[in-house]
Amino acid sequence: MTYEVKSLNEECGIFGIWGHEQAAEVTYYGLHSLQHRGQEGAGIVSNDDGKLLRHRNTGLISEVFKRPSNLAKLAGKAAIGHVRYATAGTASINNIQPFLFDFSDGQIALAHNGNLTNAKSLRAELEKKGAIFASSSDTEILMHLIRRSPKETFIEQFKDALNQVKGGFAYLMMTEDKIYAALDPNGFRPLSIGQFANGSWVISSETCAFEVIGAKWVRDVKPGEIVIIDDSGLAFDQFTTDTQMAICSMEYIYFARPDSVIHGINVHTARKNLGKRLAQEAKIDADIVVGVPNSSLSAASGYAEESGLPYEMGLIKNQYIQRTFIQPTQELREQGVRMKLSAVSSVVKGKRVVMVDDSIVRGTTSRRIVSLLREAGAKEVHVAIASPELKHPCFYGIDIQTKRELISANHSIEEVREIIGADSLSFLSIDGLIESIGLETDAPNGGLCVAYFDGNYPTELYDYEEEYLRNLHQKVDFRTQ
Amino acid sequence: MTYEVKSLNEECGIFGIWGHEQAAEVTYYGLHSLQHRGQEGAGIVSNDDGKLLRHRNTGLISEVFKRPSNLAKLAGKAAIGHVRYATAGTASINNIQPFLFDFSDGQIALAHNGNLTNAKSLRAELEKKGAIFASSSDTEILMHLIRRSPKETFIEQFKDALNQVKGGFAYLMMTEDKIYAALDPNGFRPLSIGQFANGSWVISSETCAFEVIGAKWVRDVKPGEIVIIDDSGLAFDQFTTDTQMAICSMEYIYFARPDSVIHGINVHTARKNLGKRLAQEAKIDADIVVGVPNSSLSAASGYAEESGLPYEMGLIKNQYIQRTFIQPTQELREQGVRMKLSAVSSVVKGKRVVMVDDSIVRGTTSRRIVSLLREAGAKEVHVAIASPELKHPCFYGIDIQTKRELISANHSIEEVREIIGADSLSFLSIDGLIESIGLETDAPNGGLCVAYFDGNYPTELYDYEEEYLRNLHQKVDFRTQ
Amino acid sequence: MTYEVKSLNEECGIFGIWGHEQAAEVTYYGLHSLQHRGQEGAGIVSNDDGKLLRHRNTGLISEVFKRPSNLAKLAGKAAIGHVRYATAGTASINNIQPFLFDFSDGQIALAHNGNLTNAKSLRAELEKKGAIFASSSDTEILMHLIRRSPKETFIEQFKDALNQVKGGFAYLMMTEDKIYAALDPNGFRPLSIGQFANGSWVISSETCAFEVIGAKWVRDVKPGEIVIIDDSGLAFDQFTTDTQMAICSMEYIYFARPDSVIHGINVHTARKNLGKRLAQEAKIDADIVVGVPNSSLSAASGYAEESGLPYEMGLIKNQYIQRTFIQPTQELREQGVRMKLSAVSSVVKGKRVVMVDDSIVRGTTSRRIVSLLREAGAKEVHVAIASPELKHPCFYGIDIQTKRELISANHSIEEVREIIGADSLSFLSIDGLIESIGLETDAPNGGLCVAYFDGNYPTELYDYEEEYLRNLHQKVDFRTQ
Amino acid sequence: MTYEVKSLNEECGIFGIWGHEQAAEVTYYGLHSLQHRGQEGAGIVSNDDGKLLRHRNTGLISEVFKRPSNLAKLAGKAAIGHVRYATAGTASINNIQPFLFDFSDGQIALAHNGNLTNAKSLRAELEKKGAIFASSSDTEILMHLIRRSPKETFIEQFKDALNQVKGGFAYLMMTEDKIYAALDPNGFRPLSIGQFANGSWVISSETCAFEVIGAKWVRDVKPGEIVIIDDSGLAFDQFTTDTQMAICSMEYIYFARPDSVIHGINVHTARKNLGKRLAQEAKIDADIVVGVPNSSLSAASGYAEESGLPYEMGLIKNQYIQRTFIQPTQELREQGVRMKLSAVSSVVKGKRVVMVDDSIVRGTTSRRIVSLLREAGAKEVHVAIASPELKHPCFYGIDIQTKRELISANHSIEEVREIIGADSLSFLSIDGLIESIGLETDAPNGGLCVAYFDGNYPTELYDYEEEYLRNLHQKVDFRTQ
Repeated sequence: MTYEVKSLNEECGIFGIWGHEQAAEVTYYGLHSLQHRGQEGAGIVSNDDGKLLRHRNTGLISEVFKRPSNLAKLAGKAAIGHVRYATAGTASINNIQPFLFDFSDGQIALAHNGNLTNAKSLRAELEKKGAIFASSSDTEILMHLIRRSPKETFIEQFKDALNQVKGGFAYLMMTEDKIYAALDPNGFRPLSIGQFANGSWVISSETCAFEVIGAKWVRDVKPGEIVIIDDSGLAFDQFTTDTQMAICSMEYIYFARPDSVIHGINVHTARKNLGKRLAQEAKIDADIVVGVPNSSLSAASGYAEESGLPYEMGLIKNQYIQRTFIQPTQELREQGVRMKLSAVSSVVKGKRVVMVDDSIVRGTTSRRIVSLLREAGAKEVHVAIASPELKHPCFYGIDIQTKRELISANHSIEEVREIIGADSLSFLSIDGLIESIGLETDAPNGGLCVAYFDGNYPTELYDYEEEYLRNLHQKVDFRTQ
Repeated sequence: MTYEVKSLNEECGIFGIWGHEQAAEVTYYGLHSLQHRGQEGAGIVSNDDGKLLRHRNTGLISEVFKRPSNLAKLAGKAAIGHVRYATAGTASINNIQPFLFDFSDGQIALAHNGNLTNAKSLRAELEKKGAIFASSSDTEILMHLIRRSPKETFIEQFKDALNQVKGGFAYLMMTEDKIYAALDPNGFRPLSIGQFANGSWVISSETCAFEVIGAKWVRDVKPGEIVIIDDSGLAFDQFTTDTQMAICSMEYIYFARPDSVIHGINVHTARKNLGKRLAQEAKIDADIVVGVPNSSLSAASGYAEESGLPYEMGLIKNQYIQRTFIQPTQELREQGVRMKLSAVSSVVKGKRVVMVDDSIVRGTTSRRIVSLLREAGAKEVHVAIASPELKHPCFYGIDIQTKRELISANHSIEEVREIIGADSLSFLSIDGLIESIGLETDAPNGGLCVAYFDGNYPTELYDYEEEYLRNLHQKVDFRTQ
Repeated sequence: MTYEVKSLNEECGIFGIWGHEQAAEVTYYGLHSLQHRGQEGAGIVSNDDGKLLRHRNTGLISEVFKRPSNLAKLAGKAAIGHVRYATAGTASINNIQPFLFDFSDGQIALAHNGNLTNAKSLRAELEKKGAIFASSSDTEILMHLIRRSPKETFIEQFKDALNQVKGGFAYLMMTEDKIYAALDPNGFRPLSIGQFANGSWVISSETCAFEVIGAKWVRDVKPGEIVIIDDSGLAFDQFTTDTQMAICSMEYIYFARPDSVIHGINVHTARKNLGKRLAQEAKIDADIVVGVPNSSLSAASGYAEESGLPYEMGLIKNQYIQRTFIQPTQELREQGVRMKLSAVSSVVKGKRVVMVDDSIVRGTTSRRIVSLLREAGAKEVHVAIASPELKHPCFYGIDIQTKRELISANHSIEEVREIIGADSLSFLSIDGLIESIGLETDAPNGGLCVAYFDGNYPTELYDYEEEYLRNLHQKVDFRTQ
Repeated sequence: MTYEVKSLNEECGIFGIWGHEQAAEVTYYGLHSLQHRGQEGAGIVSNDDGKLLRHRNTGLISEVFKRPSNLAKLAGKAAIGHVRYATAGTASINNIQPFLFDFSDGQIALAHNGNLTNAKSLRAELEKKGAIFASSSDTEILMHLIRRSPKETFIEQFKDALNQVKGGFAYLMMTEDKIYAALDPNGFRPLSIGQFANGSWVISSETCAFEVIGAKWVRDVKPGEIVIIDDSGLAFDQFTTDTQMAICSMEYIYFARPDSVIHGINVHTARKNLGKRLAQEAKIDADIVVGVPNSSLSAASGYAEESGLPYEMGLIKNQYIQRTFIQPTQELREQGVRMKLSAVSSVVKGKRVVMVDDSIVRGTTSRRIVSLLREAGAKEVHVAIASPELKHPCFYGIDIQTKRELISANHSIEEVREIIGADSLSFLSIDGLIESIGLETDAPNGGLCVAYFDGNYPTELYDYEEEYLRNLHQKVDFRTQ
């Protein structure tokens, strides 16, 4: 039985550094620690005394930079980089970031994490004025807005452009003498500032990159903020003061690396707390707790600790699964060929198992794992999800833009339980989620975006509004799929 | 700080199947689940109505068979396959198995897991008689012995050859109408028989392959036994009755996949028991237990359960590390660039940590992880090893053939503790090891080979004897390396 | 001694087809026959019922489309393609054509052969108005001009844009329902129309493509003309009537394939005539005539025929030279390692040789071949060039934009003779060139551009004017290089 | 219409050098000039102070050594190399030479050009004695014979082995301190000795390699001779004195490079003489002479010179054809898509053409070229072949081992003329062939092997005898194929 890639995908990771002799190399290692945020492609632009140099390609960072010369040619003391997540269809190198714009009067590199809600209308408007887009990516829009801004200085043009784009965004931009970072007014995506002992500044989507490269975390970028780094150091500006913190709760639940710290909260600890709270909310009479590797192991250990049940390794993930792997034919799959995840019979046989997972998207994977555990001899399988029911699409950077992909948007808990074949099914409450993460803030929902759970979006939806409302009450039956 | 590949390497995994429409494809999935036993290269020989077809190459199984045509061309209802572990030096495709011998009167394919102790002298003797070897591998020797045997029938020639090779071996051989498996008289290497619901027989180094392909375990091959599979079913024979079970204890400690069952004992459970016993033998006053991912997590959870200390995820392994990955330069490494393993500060900060690992070879990795935990804020780091001190080389299939590589062969526990920078260092006792694994057998050492721990080899050493004795009392100082 | 690629490079070849079931495949074969016009990269855009699909990459056409799937995915009944010549520096896939522009209201593909003389100023002007360029290629400019044109219809916008670009250009453009071809007012570059027996129309830089794909030549595109092909057939338009034929004479001398016919003149025949005329103008007392393979064989046979001297194969070109070929080190080169061209001793030994070549650019190659012939035993080597002295740069599509690269711009014939080490050196006269080609036209210079020979450019030079004038009287000494 | 690879293939080229600082690099360039003798694979073994190092792979020499490191790792002052021709079926790296044998007491590298007539029986006999072969190549046999020879010294064992193998062979062997070359008693294959100015000795299948690397030809190896090269210089020996010169006439007609000299005769000159003689034997009333590029251009120019008809370039070969090239589908081929060869309409239109080719094997190519010329407007096409009718297979190293492949073995000249659609068809006489090449020797047939023309084989046929006789009078009808 195949363990499929969860259909929750993060849109990208960004990394930048200013003032380091091996800027491109450090960026490479930084991006490597952000690889979980995007595996479709990667790129780095370095700044060699004002000349911007780029290497990018589809594939993992280790594939993109597989020859030493790929990195070696990126000379200079500053760099920005990007990892891109896998969208449907063939990956085109045209959409791999950072984008590098060559103007007669200079070069600008741009990288983006997030999703704009008014991209379609901005693009149509710009095209009507003669703009030509080189990619299908939203990211380019910002550059057109900057270049067409009537403002006089570059920073004013940048702010002008930032105030026109809506939705979730963390931008990283490099000119010949500066790196700029900017975060949307809700701070949907994480973005942190770090520093090397020698004083070099770094910016990263997640703090785990700082650990890896030997830098120290300084502080997180704030909603609506612009960070400017150059030879004179770090400077801050705001493109808007109309801000309200709403960091994506899925970063804590599923996306971010467990060793990252977002707004002061370690991700592993947050997940363990989610598991503990789940054990309080959903008491289950069982023998052992098993987490779905790798993302749910923290929550499972929290559940075990709080419930007093033993935490067991009842599911094993094959660490050699690669993208080039040939999938079993339908015929072989029916004969039971399963590659990615195995149940350990001697652990689960005859046991009542609490299977802890971080979330349910389509339910397909859960159904398979439940069946895997049963075949391995589990007496009962109780599925406990360390987050609330996913009922609404996200428009700020998670790759779920329709309710059709979400089983909980279309079925009751009891129906889902039946579909996945579990003996019981529990979800965490939204309050449980908010309190377990426990950000220090006065913002609504404890500073979290929980729109995929309750449908209350913290911003207008612009180009998505109409379709969202139209689909609001349409249901898909996952039992017949 | 880089987490390096442990210098304990298994010599290969083998897999065979007879009587299945997709024999090569099933072998591919079987080998994939044995990938941890060898990553240097892989190959499959299929049997297309008596015509043997082969594809092999260096690289992971998914790289070797990266095009669908690689597998598609391997038609037929039987196949044997092999994964080869990484030796020093450049990988040569010549040494990738199965070997395929084309004779004027037929073809024979041969795959081997293990190490012969009299290979050098056998080879020299054969060459003196005009034999030409096509590879530097020991495996070929068996075929020369078979072809030169004065016996009349093939099975008698095979037995004659098996009685001449000494050491650890699990052979898989395919002729135009049969698969043969044979295990050395001590059963050093694991080898199991399984069966599909439709009756097809499979042979595998580990039972985890059966889970993956949907087959059921039948029984393990016995020391000195020959298994013969053909269209009429399974048959057994013995090439010798002078046998004594001594399965490699490192299979339980480190090599085998946690979901495999060897001689009735599940590997994860064995490891958990090793951790529990270690907690009894080495009581440590600490706050949390952290396992070194991934191989030591079972032992760590056993330690935690027995000691009552919380089991925490204090070390994170980057799952995107690949062989193509560019290593940081010395300069960057000194600046703290560490790629493979990160310590989670928010978990270990201020804590007294029991760091559980499965074994110590050179000590380099342990030193790095201890230092990683300290930098992340751990107050104390107590290293607890869920196996005894590795003091002697192995000549039966583990890639340690000299004491120079083993820190415990050259230093006392206290010295090792100092070298790796731990607050305390504990090892499991040999008795603890034997009792925790708990095989049902009357053989010495509970049916285990523990020669790397106590130096009592269960067989003569033949070509290795002289060098082993010469080096017995020479010491290397790991502090100055 | 290495025979180097002549530093005269053509800027690209274009090919288009409308109304053929295997449009992309035919384009592939068409481009293959235009491969001599550009080896840096290639691309094809097909039109699948209005949806434009593209594949492009660096490398030869056979490398770019090395997998059958590369072509197979380009469905549809129309296609345009492009081969790009090698410029200095690393090839970037961004500059490989056809360009494919995705607009909210449709797609347009564009391919270009030629060079604009006002590209730099047009680009600067457009950027000032907010335009962002995706490549460093001039080709994109036309699309920006079209999109910003105030005209109402697409054809009017296209004409508007065509009247703003200056220099040499042959454009091929495909929209969802049409292919457009357009040629500059001087017709600097060749462009021909052909037709399949089934009625499909094709456009190609050279007629050799028609032979290869089985189509028939219809007529050549005229200066200032626009050709429009769609389901209703072929239509013609003019974007300007201010035209004057000045086809690049180097197409006849060196670039075009010998089996192509340009404006009614077969290229091989033209070259043979150049050789005959050269034999009349430069009578040499010699024993044999040897052509430099492959481009000068036609001229050499003409020279031989007219002079009555035997035509001999005294120079052999190694047909396996590829771009991946490792070049000999300087050390080995001095020891005489020569890869690309060999002299046949038994042919030239003791002979007075007329070595016919099509042109001399830097003189380096000529010097080497002369020396090669002498080492092989030639008694005398008389170099006869089947074109006039190259003294001026070209700005319409040949890759010579500075006089520094032209030995004849800096040295007298006698000096050049001395530098290349020949016994005598002869060039064809400009009149000889014009009369030998013999186009039927009333245009000046017999309808040819001979500006590289006489410095009389048929158009204004725009952005190049200033630099050209500045360098006009500067000399470089090739003896000291 | 596709111009297919002639089904006459040479079996390999060999090259060796002793005493040169860049031995492997020079071998690379030497092999490159022998590339026409084999394109399936290539390899080089260097001798680094007695340690033999190898790199080999399938593909052209430039592909096999595409990374500088491939060559750089082949250190040492001596090397031997091999290019292998394409046989049917998938290329296996196992069969790529030089073979490198690792013995406990040293290494030996071996390369071979030719074909043994008693390989099958020798191999069966050796296997019966326990020998195991690593490849399907005949080449390995010699090594088994050497290793099993009862003689005392290596040179005696080598001679002993050479006297057991029969057929056509040129061997190159390198031990830790010597290179050995050996030629069969008939000297079927060419093999020459050259020398660098610095004294280093080189051995090559053809002298064109000497030109390329800057060495001078010394003399050709004689039938039955052994050449021994080491630090003390060159030495000669004979393994047999029962010799009779019978160099393969196809080397002059088709295989060898025109700039090579074999037994004192330049290949281009020989071909030109064949063309002249053909013009005497086959007088044709025609307008122009056209050679089929590239191999027949010498013969065509001879024909033209002798007949007084003008030599014209009526057929153009596309120089960018590569092996990766996608072939047109049958459908497109019928529409007239032809890639490799084009007829020049403006040259042949309305003309009576003598089309000179070097040989006819299956007739398929000839039929296509005739049709190509007719479609291009030729009024008459007279095919003149500059060699006799190919009627018998070759067993000494040309890849034609059955009469089924030879149209002239199955049809009269008039029938062949009709099949290929020519207005007339002429072949050279066997006497014409022998006299035109004109070797200085008293051996029968002027020292040439003409067995493929007259069926008189200069040696016994051993393993081929029976099949040859059986097929002697069987006919295949090429009209129905």
